[in-house]
Amino acid sequence: MKKTALIMAGGRGERFWPKSRKNLPKQFLSLTDDGKTMIQLTVERILPQVAMEDIYIATNRDYKRLVREQLPDLPEENILCEPVGRNTAPCIGLGAVHMAKKYGDAVMIVLPSDHLIQYAAIFQSALQDACAVAEQGPNLVTIGIAPDAPETGYGYIKFLPEKTLGRAFEVERFVEKPDLETAKAYLASGQYLWNSGMFIWKVSSILDNLEKYLPDTYAGLVRIQQAIGTPAQEEVLEREFQGFQSVSIDYGVMEKADHIYTLSGSFGWDDVGSWLAIERLRASNEFGNVIDGNVVAVETRSSIIQGGKKLIATVGLENVIVVDTPDALLICEKAHAGDIKKVLENLRICNHEEYL
Amino acid sequence: MKKTALIMAGGRGERFWPKSRKNLPKQFLSLTDDGKTMIQLTVERILPQVAMEDIYIATNRDYKRLVREQLPDLPEENILCEPVGRNTAPCIGLGAVHMAKKYGDAVMIVLPSDHLIQYAAIFQSALQDACAVAEQGPNLVTIGIAPDAPETGYGYIKFLPEKTLGRAFEVERFVEKPDLETAKAYLASGQYLWNSGMFIWKVSSILDNLEKYLPDTYAGLVRIQQAIGTPAQEEVLEREFQGFQSVSIDYGVMEKADHIYTLSGSFGWDDVGSWLAIERLRASNEFGNVIDGNVVAVETRSSIIQGGKKLIATVGLENVIVVDTPDALLICEKAHAGDIKKVLENLRICNHEEYL
Repeated sequence: MKKTALIMAGGRGERFWPKSRKNLPKQFLSLTDDGKTMIQLTVERILPQVAMEDIYIATNRDYKRLVREQLPDLPEENILCEPVGRNTAPCIGLGAVHMAKKYGDAVMIVLPSDHLIQYAAIFQSALQDACAVAEQGPNLVTIGIAPDAPETGYGYIKFLPEKTLGRAFEVERFVEKPDLETAKAYLASGQYLWNSGMFIWKVSSILDNLEKYLPDTYAGLVRIQQAIGTPAQEEVLEREFQGFQSVSIDYGVMEKADHIYTLSGSFGWDDVGSWLAIERLRASNEFGNVIDGNVVAVETRSSIIQGGKKLIATVGLENVIVVDTPDALLICEKAHAGDIKKVLENLRICNHEEYL
Repeated sequence: MKKTALIMAGGRGERFWPKSRKNLPKQFLSLTDDGKTMIQLTVERILPQVAMEDIYIATNRDYKRLVREQLPDLPEENILCEPVGRNTAPCIGLGAVHMAKKYGDAVMIVLPSDHLIQYAAIFQSALQDACAVAEQGPNLVTIGIAPDAPETGYGYIKFLPEKTLGRAFEVERFVEKPDLETAKAYLASGQYLWNSGMFIWKVSSILDNLEKYLPDTYAGLVRIQQAIGTPAQEEVLEREFQGFQSVSIDYGVMEKADHIYTLSGSFGWDDVGSWLAIERLRASNEFGNVIDGNVVAVETRSSIIQGGKKLIATVGLENVIVVDTPDALLICEKAHAGDIKKVLENLRICNHEEYL
């Protein structure tokens, strides 16, 4: 069966501020040594399995230009612009109806556009296994990540070790972000995986489940599908999206549906959740610093310094993140990386939209 | 007797980098809440005692434009440009011969241009006392500062408590910057003052002493004096300064001469020796931060943040100095303020003169 991919690239993440902005979110940034952007790496990673013409990017109108610039080989009609963000269920549904229209049915790989994977070959292999499970029936497969720490920032998947299908395990349930104690218990149990947000299913399987669990959304999606290629396409898309409820595929479908499987991958997955991730992704110098730009670092250790042409001199810093851009500079103690959002809240309150 | 002042403004200090640069040294910066520059404050402070037309500024050609801009009421001929820096003895000698030419004799107050004084009225009173001592004879008077800490960065003056002249004490000797143990002993003894670099004497007294202790310099100064107002003035000045040895007035005269007096002042003197001084000079906010510019400070304490229009967001910082300028940014742990010079050494080695 044909394999297709839907890459979700509509996010407006704030955790890489001030490099990421409302008009240049993380998936369009280059954060690795190779100079490629996150979305470019995502596409590159899937290309051995899915032809470029079968890759779809779901994003919004503001980012269409960025997608075209960064992925010039992608057919323009494969860029699906959501009129408004309505979380992942309508987004995935939009991808599915486009694929149903074009291919009838297909295996559909759904991927976030802003995660990194270190071991591409292992990832390929996991995807192949997942596709095999998805192709066999109405199965909804999610890639789980074996946790190596009691993370409280991720959702978890509880699987049933005894119930296997190919290399996948049946999912008992999805659980929301836990507190630290719960996360430690999950980690110790060996029965929980992190929910990576990567899904594999047939187009027909996900549409059937959308019909069952989100019937209003499904009805709208059918109207969108019927309008594809007609003069009313944009108008219908706009109207239906405005009417959709905002709901995640996890909450709207995965937590309720049957035939849910997970496949544990161990391929150096990183959701690149904050500036701190840079130390995992980039080479450090002998003082533990990750430095870009015109930097003079004196007595500076374990710091992340991201600049450009402007001279940045650091003296006596330790565990500090410095990110300089033409109009905004961030200086943040590593331990306070989670508080960067407070800067953005502050800017919003003070009507400094120009910096967001 | 007429009172004159010579303000020495040729210094190229580096400790306020990157705000201070080779082409904009500290004396031309505004570091206080009132927005006035250091040299403007120095002139303002002396004006109750010395008329503007009797104030001379010794500087170099590069800074003449800055002096004229910042002191528009000062007669242009009162700006004395040293062709090359030869430390304070030739600088003071140059001022003295100009004053000798114009006034015959006068009381001459010599002041650095980059120190701050909090209590101007007390300073005036100390100066009046010093002038009275200087006028009485061949006395060379220096203003000493009663130490409040065992500073190792200043020279000290040992005075003889029993030998007074007016409100001044006779100086036993000048001592170089001590180590910490010695500084502590000086502080405990109650017989040492900091050498502030402020001097009061008659023009005739200092010229007599220059003749006695630095005869070659004196001979050159006489030739400079003779050429003042003639077509050869600039040429003679250039030639003589090139030939002068570089020597401080402390080493060249004060440490050797007789009739040396010191007068202890307690008027909130501050030599503004580094960015750390800003906390003494400027109002802090409730979190102990001294902030200038477009700054969003989140969980930030006891820090000095000097910016401009560009947004600076700080998160979780404590005891950090941030100084942003259009082409260079400094981020320095307070405890490492003394290492800022290493940045400049590094820039010099790498031929980045544009940042100096």
